[in-house]
Amino acid sequence: MSQNATTASAPAPAPVILTGDRPTGPLHLGHFVGSLRNRVAYQDEYRQFVMLADAQALTDNMDDTEKVHRNVVEVALDYLAVGIDPTRSTIFIQSQVPELAELTFYYLNLVTVARLERNPTVKTEIALRGFERDIPAGFLTYPASQASDISAFKATLVPVGEDQIPMIEQCNEIVRRFNRIAKRDILVECKALVPEIGRLPGIDGKAKMSKSLGNTINLGDSADQIRAAVKQVYTDPLHLKVSDPGHVEGNVAFLYLDAFDTDKAALEEMKAHYTRGGLGDSIVKKRLDLVLQEMLEPIRTRREEFAKDKGQVMQMLKEGTMKAREVAAGTVDEVRRALGLSYF
Amino acid sequence: MSQNATTASAPAPAPVILTGDRPTGPLHLGHFVGSLRNRVAYQDEYRQFVMLADAQALTDNMDDTEKVHRNVVEVALDYLAVGIDPTRSTIFIQSQVPELAELTFYYLNLVTVARLERNPTVKTEIALRGFERDIPAGFLTYPASQASDISAFKATLVPVGEDQIPMIEQCNEIVRRFNRIAKRDILVECKALVPEIGRLPGIDGKAKMSKSLGNTINLGDSADQIRAAVKQVYTDPLHLKVSDPGHVEGNVAFLYLDAFDTDKAALEEMKAHYTRGGLGDSIVKKRLDLVLQEMLEPIRTRREEFAKDKGQVMQMLKEGTMKAREVAAGTVDEVRRALGLSYF
Repeated sequence: MSQNATTASAPAPAPVILTGDRPTGPLHLGHFVGSLRNRVAYQDEYRQFVMLADAQALTDNMDDTEKVHRNVVEVALDYLAVGIDPTRSTIFIQSQVPELAELTFYYLNLVTVARLERNPTVKTEIALRGFERDIPAGFLTYPASQASDISAFKATLVPVGEDQIPMIEQCNEIVRRFNRIAKRDILVECKALVPEIGRLPGIDGKAKMSKSLGNTINLGDSADQIRAAVKQVYTDPLHLKVSDPGHVEGNVAFLYLDAFDTDKAALEEMKAHYTRGGLGDSIVKKRLDLVLQEMLEPIRTRREEFAKDKGQVMQMLKEGTMKAREVAAGTVDEVRRALGLSYF
Repeated sequence: MSQNATTASAPAPAPVILTGDRPTGPLHLGHFVGSLRNRVAYQDEYRQFVMLADAQALTDNMDDTEKVHRNVVEVALDYLAVGIDPTRSTIFIQSQVPELAELTFYYLNLVTVARLERNPTVKTEIALRGFERDIPAGFLTYPASQASDISAFKATLVPVGEDQIPMIEQCNEIVRRFNRIAKRDILVECKALVPEIGRLPGIDGKAKMSKSLGNTINLGDSADQIRAAVKQVYTDPLHLKVSDPGHVEGNVAFLYLDAFDTDKAALEEMKAHYTRGGLGDSIVKKRLDLVLQEMLEPIRTRREEFAKDKGQVMQMLKEGTMKAREVAAGTVDEVRRALGLSYF
């Protein structure tokens, strides 16, 4: 609620979550830890919208639109496999809700170029992609698009990493600016929901597990692929002999066990043993392989089940998209009226 | 057609015109000379779309959305009054064709921020409005929106002033870039249609007749208002006595007569007389008043007729908007398919 809210006495709206992914490749353990696992929990507590952000993915994939198209159903399969339930979450395709583009169009008038250029998340992403002065306008302005995605569903909670908090702030600035123009609180401010467990490193020890870095374990990976990946997992480069004391900090095998091993007592014991020396990497990795295989096997099996009938998955997406459109269309209608863009 | 057109052997499409106005105030003689008069002629030769650009008007009128809303029907009345015929031209309201916002959203990925910042028209307009670094993003990106308006209707001709030619070039760049991605010519390049008669100066002699400068004669002005305005028309400040030789160049009274007096012989005679001395401003202005009254009286009368039933005017706009939507939706469908954004 903005400080000058005129409806301060109205009851707080039920929490609504907006979350999603850019369908540019298979989802991996990093997604699982950072968001997917939480979504499965959230869907019981909140009204949850899960967006396949194909239109947003195009902002830097105009040279490979086919990749984005192909991955929509793949990511949907990942969702279903981990237990996101279309009867409890609304899963939809961004581009098929054109109301989101319409809202973005209006929000572009509510944010200055200077403000967009100051957005730390945008700055970082621009540097990461090496755009420099050749930033596509759609990339610079994507905070307006995100504000549209969030506010169209009047989402109050947006699960994001620490680094995405400036996007949430920018969204709320747009919301407040719009409500000031509308002279009433039509749009709703949201809060970042930062997961307790931070980012999962890649198997190579790099800070981020990322498809483009080739250091992922994907949710759909076969048992053999998982085994091969675990073998490559970065441990302690100074731990040369089994008898040497090893380091647990920055050791990806232990970081993964921290994230996924439910037997915390055994894990603590293993860490102590590794630290004082006498525990080989192969034992640690054997445990990691076991934990990951046990966790990913049912996910992979469900994924394969759902993948047998992609038509049904598309039907599920169609129904979710229709539901999402209805909500977004309601917001667009309010926005248009407030801007005097209602005539007939 | 782009140089790498793959359909070079296909017949050229029928000429389509996209034109329109920002509904921010009543239309005036400047509009009449620069565009309205031509549109009445074009509608017999071409398929003509006439857009009430309310959404674009918001880019710098977010502080007065009511003004934009109110002027939609007023500008539509001006159109009808001058003879733009809804059975021969498709008159529509931009914001009610959300497909235009959707196209804009995609086109933002096809133009860089640097390119938008180099656009001379945008540069000039930014300077004019004193935006400096606080340009609304929607203002910087409005060439993408214009490209959307033009290409949605596959317009091949766009009537614009000399100063708007960079906008047309930018539109064509977006069209070519899109067609390259689509690997076929889905969108159509357009040409600027620059009117033979240039810009009409204001009654005060300033280069541009403009509502914001308060130097207009509006199409709906009463006979008294026209008479009062003609009295104020800037002539020759050195022509103090009737017997003095007068200057025709830069003399707004004669510039207006050049634009509107159909009796060219009498006008030439009057100019010669004025130049050699012995012809008072009052005689010239009397002629100008007569010419303008004769020209504007039937326009005003028709305007008043149509204004009696604004409901009917809105109905006409609704029908035009539906027709426009159908065409734009067809283009959006092609664009979506080409970008892989088609699923169900």
